[in-house]
Amino acid sequence: MNHFSSFKLSQAQITDPFWGRYLELVRTKVLPYQWEALNDRIPGAEPSYCMYNFKAAAGLIKGGHKGPVFQDSDFGKWVEAVGYVLSGKRDPLLEKTADEAIDIVCAAQRPDGYLNTYYTLTDLNKRWTNLMDHHELYCLGHLLEGAIAYYEATGKNKFLNAMIRYTDLVEKNFGPEPEKLKGYPGHPELELALIKLYRITLNERYLYLAQFFIDRRGQAPLYFEEETRKHGNGNGWSGSHSFHYYQAGMPVRELPDARGHAVRMVYLLCGMAGVAGETGDTSLMDACERLWKNITGRQMYITGAVGSLPHGEAFSFDYDLPNDTIYGETCAAIGLIFFARALLEAAPLEAAPLEAAPLERAPGSCYADVMERALYNAVLSGMSLDGNRFFYVNPLEVWPRACERDFSKNHVKIERQKWFGCACCPPNLARLLASLAHYAFTSSFDGSLLMHLFIGGEFIHKTGGDAVISVKTRYPWEGTVAVAISPEKPVKFRYAFRIPSWCETYGVTLNGEAVSPGVDRGYAFLTREWKKGDVIEITFDMPVRVNEANPAVRENAGKIALSRGPIVYCLEEADNGPNLHLLYLPSGSEFKTEFKENLLGGVETITADALVLRNDWPEDALYRKASPPVYNPKTITWIPYYAWANRGKGEMRVWMNRLLNS
Amino acid sequence: MNHFSSFKLSQAQITDPFWGRYLELVRTKVLPYQWEALNDRIPGAEPSYCMYNFKAAAGLIKGGHKGPVFQDSDFGKWVEAVGYVLSGKRDPLLEKTADEAIDIVCAAQRPDGYLNTYYTLTDLNKRWTNLMDHHELYCLGHLLEGAIAYYEATGKNKFLNAMIRYTDLVEKNFGPEPEKLKGYPGHPELELALIKLYRITLNERYLYLAQFFIDRRGQAPLYFEEETRKHGNGNGWSGSHSFHYYQAGMPVRELPDARGHAVRMVYLLCGMAGVAGETGDTSLMDACERLWKNITGRQMYITGAVGSLPHGEAFSFDYDLPNDTIYGETCAAIGLIFFARALLEAAPLEAAPLEAAPLERAPGSCYADVMERALYNAVLSGMSLDGNRFFYVNPLEVWPRACERDFSKNHVKIERQKWFGCACCPPNLARLLASLAHYAFTSSFDGSLLMHLFIGGEFIHKTGGDAVISVKTRYPWEGTVAVAISPEKPVKFRYAFRIPSWCETYGVTLNGEAVSPGVDRGYAFLTREWKKGDVIEITFDMPVRVNEANPAVRENAGKIALSRGPIVYCLEEADNGPNLHLLYLPSGSEFKTEFKENLLGGVETITADALVLRNDWPEDALYRKASPPVYNPKTITWIPYYAWANRGKGEMRVWMNRLLNS
Repeated sequence: MNHFSSFKLSQAQITDPFWGRYLELVRTKVLPYQWEALNDRIPGAEPSYCMYNFKAAAGLIKGGHKGPVFQDSDFGKWVEAVGYVLSGKRDPLLEKTADEAIDIVCAAQRPDGYLNTYYTLTDLNKRWTNLMDHHELYCLGHLLEGAIAYYEATGKNKFLNAMIRYTDLVEKNFGPEPEKLKGYPGHPELELALIKLYRITLNERYLYLAQFFIDRRGQAPLYFEEETRKHGNGNGWSGSHSFHYYQAGMPVRELPDARGHAVRMVYLLCGMAGVAGETGDTSLMDACERLWKNITGRQMYITGAVGSLPHGEAFSFDYDLPNDTIYGETCAAIGLIFFARALLEAAPLEAAPLEAAPLERAPGSCYADVMERALYNAVLSGMSLDGNRFFYVNPLEVWPRACERDFSKNHVKIERQKWFGCACCPPNLARLLASLAHYAFTSSFDGSLLMHLFIGGEFIHKTGGDAVISVKTRYPWEGTVAVAISPEKPVKFRYAFRIPSWCETYGVTLNGEAVSPGVDRGYAFLTREWKKGDVIEITFDMPVRVNEANPAVRENAGKIALSRGPIVYCLEEADNGPNLHLLYLPSGSEFKTEFKENLLGGVETITADALVLRNDWPEDALYRKASPPVYNPKTITWIPYYAWANRGKGEMRVWMNRLLNS
Repeated sequence: MNHFSSFKLSQAQITDPFWGRYLELVRTKVLPYQWEALNDRIPGAEPSYCMYNFKAAAGLIKGGHKGPVFQDSDFGKWVEAVGYVLSGKRDPLLEKTADEAIDIVCAAQRPDGYLNTYYTLTDLNKRWTNLMDHHELYCLGHLLEGAIAYYEATGKNKFLNAMIRYTDLVEKNFGPEPEKLKGYPGHPELELALIKLYRITLNERYLYLAQFFIDRRGQAPLYFEEETRKHGNGNGWSGSHSFHYYQAGMPVRELPDARGHAVRMVYLLCGMAGVAGETGDTSLMDACERLWKNITGRQMYITGAVGSLPHGEAFSFDYDLPNDTIYGETCAAIGLIFFARALLEAAPLEAAPLEAAPLERAPGSCYADVMERALYNAVLSGMSLDGNRFFYVNPLEVWPRACERDFSKNHVKIERQKWFGCACCPPNLARLLASLAHYAFTSSFDGSLLMHLFIGGEFIHKTGGDAVISVKTRYPWEGTVAVAISPEKPVKFRYAFRIPSWCETYGVTLNGEAVSPGVDRGYAFLTREWKKGDVIEITFDMPVRVNEANPAVRENAGKIALSRGPIVYCLEEADNGPNLHLLYLPSGSEFKTEFKENLLGGVETITADALVLRNDWPEDALYRKASPPVYNPKTITWIPYYAWANRGKGEMRVWMNRLLNS
């Protein structure tokens, strides 16, 4: 059993100016837009066929299956986001749309509980014969997550009951018993959904099924190898990547590093951390922590993007983090946030309370640090500021001509797209943003409250009676966070907040008096009897920070990147003209920051006096005897990375040249 | 009619220590090895099927066509190299092998003259129905070049006559007349071979056919588009690259830049320059010069490699020259040398003799400069020092792990390969090296002699009587070139030699006395009545040169590369350990050079005191607040680029970081 729980959305009301805009966008624009997309009604966009397939499978219209095999999952993610939105704010029209959609989806369910439009519309006898590539169990996972969210928001259980029937069918057919199938999802996802189902039903069969999928994965003889042979399937991605593409080439506890398809990897890790947390399986938790360390310590971009290889949308190898040929799928950064949250929930913190000496296995603030990094940068960059254009790939450096003409950069789009045939990212973004409160706090069984993200709103900490935690902040633009704690009646608990890794100095007051809270593993904490009117004010100093990368990252040699608070910055052609590679930042530069209300939805910009290499070359010459470079002064402007590509096509780069002064 | 002619091989005997080794290698190792390869007898190498296909087409064995459609061409290139070798040195065994092979090849010829094993062994009714992708005319071009070389070396005309019959058949079926096909080769090659055939037969039909192919190419309606539609062919590379892959998307005179498949591009340019030179077609010559300028001024690596895109083995766009994802096919660099030579031959120098003011259209030394650059670097790197391993792709930077695990660098091999299924490069290298004397000199109709490359040997300048030009040099390691001119009887002519673009200072003596020759367009010249015993001694000062790239080349920003004379240098892990990206060369470094007899077949090495960035990072951390870098001193060693990858796997880089001193 986990020691920490995330807040439920019913415990949260976000009123934050930064996030409030996004949440409203999700409710009023993103979800309605995506509903149109799922119904193939976006002019000029690739059709989804998602609802078409459900209608056809339900016999409501005539037709065969269209689009990729995994389109069912997009409904799952959409309805999950709808559930989250409805938890925070009633929206009868949205709820009606969802109810009608659920009726269609449930009508597609077979009498035995099975629900997958691809096999229903092709050949039901072939179900569960291509677990490796056909996303069957993956789709169930997403539908199940959607059903749970919708049930929790609305109390309506039609969809949830349908999905439990389907899950029970799967549970009857997969497992360690001799007569059952020994397979597991080619794309992990169902594992983490089963943990969620276990937590709301407390039915251990779901936990055991998740455990079975995880324990079985990659055990010899390899299930996918046998399946491919037995059913004459194509060999999918196993040809070029081997079964590591699916994280199914060796037992999961033995994986030395993150490898293969990045979204599969992080989703699998969510399931692993969930099972480890619930069962106390230390070998599984060891593997989670080793892979967390590998990902965040060797395979993560400064924006929190992961999965640098376009071929197979995959993890590459340690320190291979090219900025311009990156994949960095939006979904992979989202999955990394899920994984961080799973680890926060699973962390065995009770074994060494925050007052005690650090544990050897210190969970600490690193999880929420990465969560914050990915959220404010790699994830937000996936969506346009107006909520209807999306990036699948999130580069840190763009030279538009190269993206158009060099095929090795062809996957990098320089403008966000309307929709994708394989549209995993847009609804994934919607469900993450709509459920942000899930990530802000965890509470432990002893009543401790840990604040991971600094999001303005009202949150209800359930410890004895309800304590209202009211957070006011202009984060991420300002580092002041005021937390008013209002319990029904005075109650003692430990209030802890993360000290972000980017923060070097901070101050804390309690009811106006400076205090010096203890700090353990990156969290400052105050333990006392809280009573109405208590206010903690935290001020994180938030200067511009010049970052360098581990020199093992070859792409960033001699370069720096700016950040301020959790926000990573970039240079765009719109502010600085083309040829960003000719810009140099001298050491000791002074930065000016300014909040621009009307720029890019309101952003803090940074300017500094930099240098630009004077290019005195003729156009038709390539090489010459080196001479000392000459620079001209140039004032340059950075904007938050997440807001790039909202002003037309142009160059962009996060890492810029550094010039060492004499 | 061209104004300059290259020397024939019968006019040359190379005795140079540097090239002598290569020529002997070609004769005694490369050609016998390649003969084994053409006969599928190299254990562990991909089979060629080249001779197998000819035997099957001749009915000598039973079987269908195997391997790619263009394998016939490998015999053409092999026998061409054999011809060149036999021009310089009798080798009865090699000649016997070639004669027997020619018997087989000629036995495969159809009664009407047609000779292509793919269509003969599949369906002769389909010949000339897929000019775009089936390399039919390309193969004829190579067979024709081979036949001409073999005839010129041995006087045996069996193969040449057979190929003339085949060419006549093509000439009967292709051309501007209404009843003839309006197509042209999908892979240019036949055009340049037809120029050669015209020059030895003086039959203008061959020149006209070459001209027809060139003039027709890319004219609307696009032949390849119509052919694809008419014959239901696949759309080959036109899908992703459009017809520009074949340089067949617009008339050749209108091409604004080099584009599409790099070898196709440079071979086409050879044909264009040949036709322009023979016909005086200035619009065609303008196009050649514009494209030469584009290639060498914007799309060429410092090694002379061209074609940076792996996808389609193609030219990319101006200044897009990545060092690690480069294609840089050996054949493309060879083709660039062919093009340079074609331009040297076609240059209308008589219109303004060397004594006169520079022409507006100055041909000048740039052609031979590039020829030299490509030859000593990009071309030689294509072959191992022992002559039996080959690179198709010639990177300027290699991180072995990335080549193994990052699919965008997977085409970059870190060790030369035994052979390739598509084995264009090895025999192309053999024929270039075996015919090196073709490139060293041109002579003009007025008796002028231009020395382009500095290669030791005896050369016969035919001007009235024969003048023996005896060249002694330790080039490329030393810059002294002694040229003894021994005419049968005193004869007046202009002797000109190229001043290499890398050379800033040089001295010239004539019979021991310092002289100051005139210089025009990069050539120094001495005009006098030469008599036996005259000796010119040229000394090019050859210090280590630190090169920088045009800042428009983003990959080389902040980097330098060393060269000395014509040789480009690189750093290898074998000499400097791994992590070459941590090395910095401070400005003002002093270089030591040393000739190491026993290293890599004898090479001049360069050493200098450099700096290595101290890496004090823990392994599992990626980003931190920037601090001033700390460097440790380190003496580093460069070797010639062409000799890299002869000591096992390891990192290599040509461009290294530059550190600007305070």
